[in-house]
Amino acid sequence: LDELAETGYAGLTFEGVARRAGVHKTTVYRRWSTLERLVLAAMLEQARLGVPVADTGSLRTDLLALGLGSAATTATAQSETVLRTVVGVGSRDAAIARASREFWDARLAMDAAIVERAIGRDEVDAGTCPREVIEAVLAPIYFRRLVTSEPVDDDYVKRLVDRVCDGVTGAGRRTPRARR
Amino acid sequence: LDELAETGYAGLTFEGVARRAGVHKTTVYRRWSTLERLVLAAMLEQARLGVPVADTGSLRTDLLALGLGSAATTATAQSETVLRTVVGVGSRDAAIARASREFWDARLAMDAAIVERAIGRDEVDAGTCPREVIEAVLAPIYFRRLVTSEPVDDDYVKRLVDRVCDGVTGAGRRTPRARR
Repeated sequence: LDELAETGYAGLTFEGVARRAGVHKTTVYRRWSTLERLVLAAMLEQARLGVPVADTGSLRTDLLALGLGSAATTATAQSETVLRTVVGVGSRDAAIARASREFWDARLAMDAAIVERAIGRDEVDAGTCPREVIEAVLAPIYFRRLVTSEPVDDDYVKRLVDRVCDGVTGAGRRTPRARR
Repeated sequence: LDELAETGYAGLTFEGVARRAGVHKTTVYRRWSTLERLVLAAMLEQARLGVPVADTGSLRTDLLALGLGSAATTATAQSETVLRTVVGVGSRDAAIARASREFWDARLAMDAAIVERAIGRDEVDAGTCPREVIEAVLAPIYFRRLVTSEPVDDDYVKRLVDRVCDGVTGAGRRTPRARR
């Protein structure tokens, strides 16, 4: 990831990665047969280590920890390069596409525990899809990082999490219209 | 865009685009000096034509039209290739990055009219940021298209819009906890 951040994807080589890691290049490409696979593996490893799943006893603070954690792990130039590389490669490489789908499937299932616990505490309706609530928090952060390039500051993440929470708990500030 | 969808970005050439358009290749690269700029210009044009801003008199149905429209215009293999190319190029090319930011700035400002009208009708609190509500609808659709590769069907978009609306209008189905 350090090498990728320094050279960019266009300048990335097995030789450069091997040199930085202090191993022979055959050691690298024996395990990851293409540069794309190597980059994906590095990204998955980084994401796995980056954002632990909070369990604070409240949906709002658990989702806030998730949002702030994701904002932080996607904030570096290194992380942006890796994300853009994987999205850019996209469906052109079937192995990368499958590995990426498997990664997100696992990641969303892991994070979904936050919403499942909130359903268990009766904070959220049992009919709510836990993964879609997690997506509602993660997607706007990735959208800003990858698509619009707008800043993601803590206040933005807090407003985002508040809106998502109000949407699934019905705890909006306004008087529900049906009750007026 | 037809040429890009057929060849993929790796196979795209000025010659191929010019041949398909029935012009000389100098006509193409005189106007767009790199392939990346050509692809971005094509994407912006497609997006500009793709999703008109609805004005149905209700936040929910306006946002649903926006969501279904965006789901439809991002559904094709052609559109996916273009999106992945622009995101993949990302911040490596300053001109592309600037053009993409300008496009999204204009696009979000245009769509924000939906929320501004809802504030005018007192459907939504005046303190709500219109662009962030638009992002809350668009981001999960782009997240599925680009990042998780999960399907985006009409039912998904409807649930998404319902959650966003409930979050900003306070019209969630559950009794707000503060009132119990």
